Amino acid sequence: MSEHPIEFRRHSAAHVMAAAIKHLFPEAKFGVGPVIENGFYYDIDIGRPVTPEDLKTIEKEMRKIVNQNPAFTREELPIDDAIKLFRELDQPYKLELLNDLKTKGTTKVSTEEAQDIDPQNVGSVTLYRTGDFVDLCRGPHVTEAKEIGAWKLGKIAGAYWRGKETNPQMQRIYGLCFETEKELDEYQAMLVEAEKRDHRKLGQELDLFFIDDKIGKGLAMWLPKGVAVRDQVEKLAVEMEAKYGYERVITPHIAKEELYLTSGHLPYYKDSMYPPMVMDDGTYYMKSMNCPHHHMMYLHKPHSYRELPIRLAEYGTVYRNELSGTLAGLLRVRAMAMNDAHIYCRKDQIKEEFKKVMEMTLRYFEIFQLKNYWFRLSKWSPAHPEKYIQEPEHWEYTQGVLRDVLQEMDVEFREADDEAAFYGPKIDVQFKSAIGREESMSTIQLDFLAKQRFGLAYTDESGQKNEEVFVIHRAPLSTHERFMAFLIEHYAGAFPLWLAPVQIAVLPVADRHIEFARVLADELRALGLRVSVDDSSESVGKKIRAAEKQKFPRMLVVGDREADGGALTVRVHGEKDQQETSKEKFFEETLASIKSRQA
Amino acid sequence: MSEHPIEFRRHSAAHVMAAAIKHLFPEAKFGVGPVIENGFYYDIDIGRPVTPEDLKTIEKEMRKIVNQNPAFTREELPIDDAIKLFRELDQPYKLELLNDLKTKGTTKVSTEEAQDIDPQNVGSVTLYRTGDFVDLCRGPHVTEAKEIGAWKLGKIAGAYWRGKETNPQMQRIYGLCFETEKELDEYQAMLVEAEKRDHRKLGQELDLFFIDDKIGKGLAMWLPKGVAVRDQVEKLAVEMEAKYGYERVITPHIAKEELYLTSGHLPYYKDSMYPPMVMDDGTYYMKSMNCPHHHMMYLHKPHSYRELPIRLAEYGTVYRNELSGTLAGLLRVRAMAMNDAHIYCRKDQIKEEFKKVMEMTLRYFEIFQLKNYWFRLSKWSPAHPEKYIQEPEHWEYTQGVLRDVLQEMDVEFREADDEAAFYGPKIDVQFKSAIGREESMSTIQLDFLAKQRFGLAYTDESGQKNEEVFVIHRAPLSTHERFMAFLIEHYAGAFPLWLAPVQIAVLPVADRHIEFARVLADELRALGLRVSVDDSSESVGKKIRAAEKQKFPRMLVVGDREADGGALTVRVHGEKDQQETSKEKFFEETLASIKSRQA
Repeated sequence: MSEHPIEFRRHSAAHVMAAAIKHLFPEAKFGVGPVIENGFYYDIDIGRPVTPEDLKTIEKEMRKIVNQNPAFTREELPIDDAIKLFRELDQPYKLELLNDLKTKGTTKVSTEEAQDIDPQNVGSVTLYRTGDFVDLCRGPHVTEAKEIGAWKLGKIAGAYWRGKETNPQMQRIYGLCFETEKELDEYQAMLVEAEKRDHRKLGQELDLFFIDDKIGKGLAMWLPKGVAVRDQVEKLAVEMEAKYGYERVITPHIAKEELYLTSGHLPYYKDSMYPPMVMDDGTYYMKSMNCPHHHMMYLHKPHSYRELPIRLAEYGTVYRNELSGTLAGLLRVRAMAMNDAHIYCRKDQIKEEFKKVMEMTLRYFEIFQLKNYWFRLSKWSPAHPEKYIQEPEHWEYTQGVLRDVLQEMDVEFREADDEAAFYGPKIDVQFKSAIGREESMSTIQLDFLAKQRFGLAYTDESGQKNEEVFVIHRAPLSTHERFMAFLIEHYAGAFPLWLAPVQIAVLPVADRHIEFARVLADELRALGLRVSVDDSSESVGKKIRAAEKQKFPRMLVVGDREADGGALTVRVHGEKDQQETSKEKFFEETLASIKSRQA
Repeated sequence: MSEHPIEFRRHSAAHVMAAAIKHLFPEAKFGVGPVIENGFYYDIDIGRPVTPEDLKTIEKEMRKIVNQNPAFTREELPIDDAIKLFRELDQPYKLELLNDLKTKGTTKVSTEEAQDIDPQNVGSVTLYRTGDFVDLCRGPHVTEAKEIGAWKLGKIAGAYWRGKETNPQMQRIYGLCFETEKELDEYQAMLVEAEKRDHRKLGQELDLFFIDDKIGKGLAMWLPKGVAVRDQVEKLAVEMEAKYGYERVITPHIAKEELYLTSGHLPYYKDSMYPPMVMDDGTYYMKSMNCPHHHMMYLHKPHSYRELPIRLAEYGTVYRNELSGTLAGLLRVRAMAMNDAHIYCRKDQIKEEFKKVMEMTLRYFEIFQLKNYWFRLSKWSPAHPEKYIQEPEHWEYTQGVLRDVLQEMDVEFREADDEAAFYGPKIDVQFKSAIGREESMSTIQLDFLAKQRFGLAYTDESGQKNEEVFVIHRAPLSTHERFMAFLIEHYAGAFPLWLAPVQIAVLPVADRHIEFARVLADELRALGLRVSVDDSSESVGKKIRAAEKQKFPRMLVVGDREADGGALTVRVHGEKDQQETSKEKFFEETLASIKSRQA
């Protein structure tokens, strides 16, 4: 097989699909058919919607064409001859493009369509022929159809001609195309997995959250089961932060514009903030970050060198004015609860504090069973002075400190020049998600701008005022929203016992066992466990299937023997066998698993 | 002693004070001197500020006058004669009032001043003489000075003549006046107690919270120690609500105007809400209550009769646009975290649900050691149909149900006609605070409007849609802000062990005991206790006094004997004696006290 670039293969597949459609629907009108990520599409008009049945027939016809292995041949034609040809072929959309090209010198339909017609060459146009099919096309293509590689048709969608709602609606048929069958299979498996793990789908099925247009786009409404998971994440953070000497504060969701003028968020960041609210005593903004509030906490009292570092933590909800069209599920929202903290330290404490934050971050990864991650040290660039705060000594010193930390902790890391924040270097954590997507989750940033803007200072050993208070911004668990989306995908909704919204489902075999099931559930609840009882009139088989679908980590099937004081019958989510376990042992194992936060 | 009304006594005391001032400062000019709650004041001008020393001298002179026991005698004088008299006395402020009276027929200075001059009687005015002092005055007074009763001078404040900043500034001297010495003493004791317990003062001293103008008025910034107390209150609520079958939800702090148009908060409640924020997809408001969000939670899925009651709880922060001038400490704020919940129930469940909420409320009172409370059942009035939702049957039925609940629970209650909310009857809890102030803390409200506005429904036993979902709004712990202010005052800052921000202070006797103190503190922290170590270089006596001032419930004094493994030396806040207790016993007693939430 020749070494054709993947784009040639994908575009050739689009032509083969068009040829097949032309065979099956001789009256079909064609719009544009560009290459996209992972494949191609073609917009067509057959006078009615395309059905999944049609798709099968088209795919079959395509296989037939590929087996005949026609060549892709290029022709150059004066534009008027091309207009004549497509008029004869009765292709009004192609004609419209050609006429635009002739009269306006452009055929702008969308960015994708650029590859169909070369706007640089308006005297003549190129055509490609594949067997009996001819298309207006810039090319290039593979030489013959068998060189296309591995392909498969995908979904069907409606699409207005040239993207305008007032134009006729066409049918867009998508196809996947890769060089090898193996790549195609892997991509399809990934799609299946991604769909299974989609946090919006699972969020709905497992009753974790919803988003309602009447409340507002990008604003999650957390249902009781979602709150249960959030609470566990928050509890973990509170415990961990207590261990590391953080103090918890709570600040309002709004502040006066004066605060944001001091911090510099106004005017520079104004577009990302919610619109101002003018009150009788000034102008207020919803906060889009917690740091300015925390800096005011620091300033509330004078501090001595002995008090530093001061670590202020808050699960604060911040609000960002994202464009409504960009919002999607929990991954792109307007309200986010952040596991935020700011560490105020002396210059000589930066290394130790960064190290502690790194340690905490690694401990979180261990608890959540994350493995494919690495770190990125983002540095400034002295060549772009306008992009960075001008404290060259601090940049060099602190970048060295951060590098030392990464080396001493023996973690995988890469350095990136000219990628720092305006106010200081940072360490980002990158990792590969369960479906192979690379993501940036948490970030640890050093800030040497805040001390200037807010006048953060302390009294040193000799009683002098020292104005070098360095601030570390850190959010190892990202936002509740983003982290929840990530966790749903990571666990495919099957949360480990300690995190699960319902930890144990008690399933009575018959109605006469409901009373015992309730007593048992109350006993478990008294131990602090989250328990549900299925008191519906369904068969126990159906109850088990329902509990499996809800991905409850443990099920207790309760029948005559159990009600009579026998051992418990325990099922573990995803496992076929059930086990008999004494009540004491089950209680003990369950509590131990939760305490250790193991799967 | 004659039966003079208290107002006569207070106004007579004001005249005696003016007479004394005239003796001591013959050039003094007098403004107005009305009766106020608990006493009186007089605005005077002696050409310089009045000092606390002056106050003592004035009080001494007043006692002298009272001992001489002059009579209060009334005279009526044509207005022109009065003008002549006060010109001779060189009293420009009185002259201004008389001239106003003569030319405009009014002497409006402020509402209080009305009693000095009778605007009905402009042809002549009345004067009162007390010994050698004469004042323009409507009266009446006591007959002679000894009848005044018990009085004492209070504070001094600046006050502009007629309340206008462009007028000369006068000195306002306040006095207290009661019929008996006992009443005066009690009132003074209450003032001392109120000042000691003032939540703003203690909030600052105990590092619980602060309010900063740069963040905004009425917006509490919760310091770590305040958060510790809040967390304990919240933890209690979460536990209690779990026990009573509540489910926790979390909703955003904003919503689209469509939601508030549905709920009816817009346009009726608009002035109390924060100003609108116009975004690319509509207009948003900060929420001033959680109910509309919770109703949307209810509507998220259809419900069957078996699922009701559904109890949705949230510690949600709401924002109200109060005028900046009315904001004060935590009692009048713009942001408040509410222990809010909404119960969605069938008509036949109202009684049971109200009873459960009442039970919970009483249990809270027990935990927080509140005793002087009673309930008020606020009912509608059929005579004012415009004030109430027109469902007469529901009013009569539900008021009866609420009365039954109050009677069955055998609590003290009063009924109040025409005091209900627009949407249903309610039960308010009233009580007397630690300083004798009557307060309304929590409220339980029934709502039969929400079902109409939001279309709240369920499917009944026969599969029919039933649109009679009754909503109960309840917030037994009020808002975090109001409740914290109340608790600070209630405990005078000395929180019980389970609530205290720092539960145990470890106080090393000398520097060599610091290490042991830290180990001991870590041991206590591992048990979940909130502990501080005083590692300053102060003497142990000073450390104890500092810990007492911070009102830490327990202190452990750690010296050689303790460090060598001997018994612990325990001090309890407010008690003089210290006790020796074995470590095990101390740990056990401490944890038991916390678990039971006893003082």
